[in-house]
Amino acid sequence: MSFGRTAIFGIVSLNRLKTALPYIFGTATTITYCYVHKPFNKHHAAMLDFFRLIPTSLDTDVSDKYPDKPSESFMAESITNKDILEKDALNSYQARMEIFILKLQKQLCHVLEQYEAKQNSEIRFQVDRWTREEGGGGITCVMQDGEVFEKAGVNISVVHGQLPVQAIEQMRARGHQFIARNIPLNFFAAGISSVIHPRNPHVPTIHFNYRYFELVDVDGTIHWWYGGLVLMFKMKMIIRLFVFLSFSGTDLTPYYLNENDCKHFHLSLKKTCDKHDSSYYSKFKKWCDDYFNINYRSNERRGIGGIFFDDLNQPNQESCFSFVKACANTVIPSYIPLIKTNYQRSYTTSEREWQLLRRGRYAEFNLVLDRGTKFGLQTPGARIESILMSLPPIAKWKYGWDFKEDSPEMKLMKVLKEPREWV
Amino acid sequence: MSFGRTAIFGIVSLNRLKTALPYIFGTATTITYCYVHKPFNKHHAAMLDFFRLIPTSLDTDVSDKYPDKPSESFMAESITNKDILEKDALNSYQARMEIFILKLQKQLCHVLEQYEAKQNSEIRFQVDRWTREEGGGGITCVMQDGEVFEKAGVNISVVHGQLPVQAIEQMRARGHQFIARNIPLNFFAAGISSVIHPRNPHVPTIHFNYRYFELVDVDGTIHWWYGGLVLMFKMKMIIRLFVFLSFSGTDLTPYYLNENDCKHFHLSLKKTCDKHDSSYYSKFKKWCDDYFNINYRSNERRGIGGIFFDDLNQPNQESCFSFVKACANTVIPSYIPLIKTNYQRSYTTSEREWQLLRRGRYAEFNLVLDRGTKFGLQTPGARIESILMSLPPIAKWKYGWDFKEDSPEMKLMKVLKEPREWV
Repeated sequence: MSFGRTAIFGIVSLNRLKTALPYIFGTATTITYCYVHKPFNKHHAAMLDFFRLIPTSLDTDVSDKYPDKPSESFMAESITNKDILEKDALNSYQARMEIFILKLQKQLCHVLEQYEAKQNSEIRFQVDRWTREEGGGGITCVMQDGEVFEKAGVNISVVHGQLPVQAIEQMRARGHQFIARNIPLNFFAAGISSVIHPRNPHVPTIHFNYRYFELVDVDGTIHWWYGGLVLMFKMKMIIRLFVFLSFSGTDLTPYYLNENDCKHFHLSLKKTCDKHDSSYYSKFKKWCDDYFNINYRSNERRGIGGIFFDDLNQPNQESCFSFVKACANTVIPSYIPLIKTNYQRSYTTSEREWQLLRRGRYAEFNLVLDRGTKFGLQTPGARIESILMSLPPIAKWKYGWDFKEDSPEMKLMKVLKEPREWV
Repeated sequence: MSFGRTAIFGIVSLNRLKTALPYIFGTATTITYCYVHKPFNKHHAAMLDFFRLIPTSLDTDVSDKYPDKPSESFMAESITNKDILEKDALNSYQARMEIFILKLQKQLCHVLEQYEAKQNSEIRFQVDRWTREEGGGGITCVMQDGEVFEKAGVNISVVHGQLPVQAIEQMRARGHQFIARNIPLNFFAAGISSVIHPRNPHVPTIHFNYRYFELVDVDGTIHWWYGGLVLMFKMKMIIRLFVFLSFSGTDLTPYYLNENDCKHFHLSLKKTCDKHDSSYYSKFKKWCDDYFNINYRSNERRGIGGIFFDDLNQPNQESCFSFVKACANTVIPSYIPLIKTNYQRSYTTSEREWQLLRRGRYAEFNLVLDRGTKFGLQTPGARIESILMSLPPIAKWKYGWDFKEDSPEMKLMKVLKEPREWV
């Protein structure tokens, strides 16, 4: 047990310590635990919040500042060499993005583990750090079969290499302007993605991903944007994919419609958007409703949406980075209260059944329609386990559902068929 | 209770009658029951077999002869008007195929319901007869949440209409020779498809479909073949699908490898093939192994294969029809013994868990790779419930499986990675 952990527990109540004991003595050997030492700066105040199991507020934002104790602050060793990362932390968006997603991954995993520990569950995140031959790698964190979370995945990836000509031409066709013609360019991509499937049907599933891209032109100009990148190119008659990353955004999939939860979730996102651009929320909300649409199921949405965007590079880089950080930092305050208020609610077998049927739809969307998943599966050598981490732990399909007109299930279905304005 | 049913029960033992009682008095109001009256012809001998719950042998083949009592012999009213069907039964392959699949659907549903009834379960097939605006329709039969069968679907469809020019050109590119240029042609398609997901992990899942196609050329020549048809054409910039039918064949998906079962299954298929052409089995077995391949899962097969073919139109129509009937008639004798010997076996929660994880792979194959499903989902106005009937009733996904080198699970995995010759 580290000193840091002892120090923090020294100031929480005995009762909370008792709740946390199974966690402290858990057998999650594959996990790198990390708690910082100095207990009174802003970052540590946030850590205390986690131990107190109070959902973090917007004040507990993860920053892109390099942490004091690198070895103790991430779920695993950073992808970029830590000395380079620390040196570049002030002047490079690559480094700032990597630090930010490493810290957010740690924070989110930590919050989720706390809820798991509250139920005396010893389930913890399994951490897999992987590297990519062509450059970079990632950290896949998955917690499964928990009491509170049936499956929660929080992944980061930081990859770089050369983008082939065909891919560059596809990006040009999408509106990006490059000087380069017929030569490959160096690229960099860093992102965080997560899907959380709680066990209780009254707690919604959340999905989010936030990504940053850079492409270095022949004259040294760095083209950058926040969002996604899906590029396909043909090589020797085989369709191959180069980078298979989805768009950026956060969306919620409830199984039962708790209107206050939905409003809180959307209001949190709207507040974050409004601080940056008053047009963002309505634009990105519509984009989200349009994307998570199971068209072949009579345009049934996967959930109640959220925000969704791509190719964000205006008005300037600092502003965009700040917006993306703010969106990603909104995940915890927008979502954790929904866990807090619902995870101990009782539920019936038929409510559980409905949740599993809806999860069947979730699996369908991911396998049939999600661009990132589809293209990922076509990529030779792709890390399939990380790509399919988003699939629900358990799902059902039933021929011909039947529910009553005024049932809670029908209430949800109506919103899925006709997305509502929540704020 | 019809006279026929009474007559049949009159000659079975009291003990068997007792077993069948819950079935007789079941509440399956949506089902058209049918038992023929004269108890001593070949067809009725087969019916007796069902009541005795003895797996049918090859002698109990369904024929393409129009039944004596049409209203009592199918799961629902035939798609083609019964007078036309009866009149054409001797001289038209369209009619013979429709009669055959209607009868086989009935026979298979009946056998499966008998097993369900053996467990004192009141679950029966739900029957949905549907029609298609452009011509024809189908009968979807689904039994779900049973004691023996978690989900079993047996569907037939008989459709006709006009095949657009783009579709004809695609077929020409596949090797079919037509006189017609730039004009639509009349087509006819009739087929049966089925997926059976038993509850017990020791009973394999089976899937089969058999289909017949006709296309009438400008000079009146009828182009015909047995197999599948997947045609896509663009219309007003939207990719639309015209007919979305898969190939023909039967394949088995065990969760635990019972070598005798696998041998019996493949030997049944081989015997059927060998009676028609000694080259068929090895050719169609390889085709099957190649098709049901989850390539992105390091070429893991969905199951242990079976036979699979397309574009069968040699040496002549009677011979092809006879072969397809024989293959479809092999489903019951190749599969029912596997139910019989395994459905009452005890199983552990970890065996059930493994079954559900493998079913996750089944869902993946169907949603990501199966051509029929993929194209079906892209078809505006397609009957999605019928297309996705093939999905397992319940499936699981787990990040990072782990099993021992000599475990039964690993034994299956080895065969899935490297298909074996069973006979």
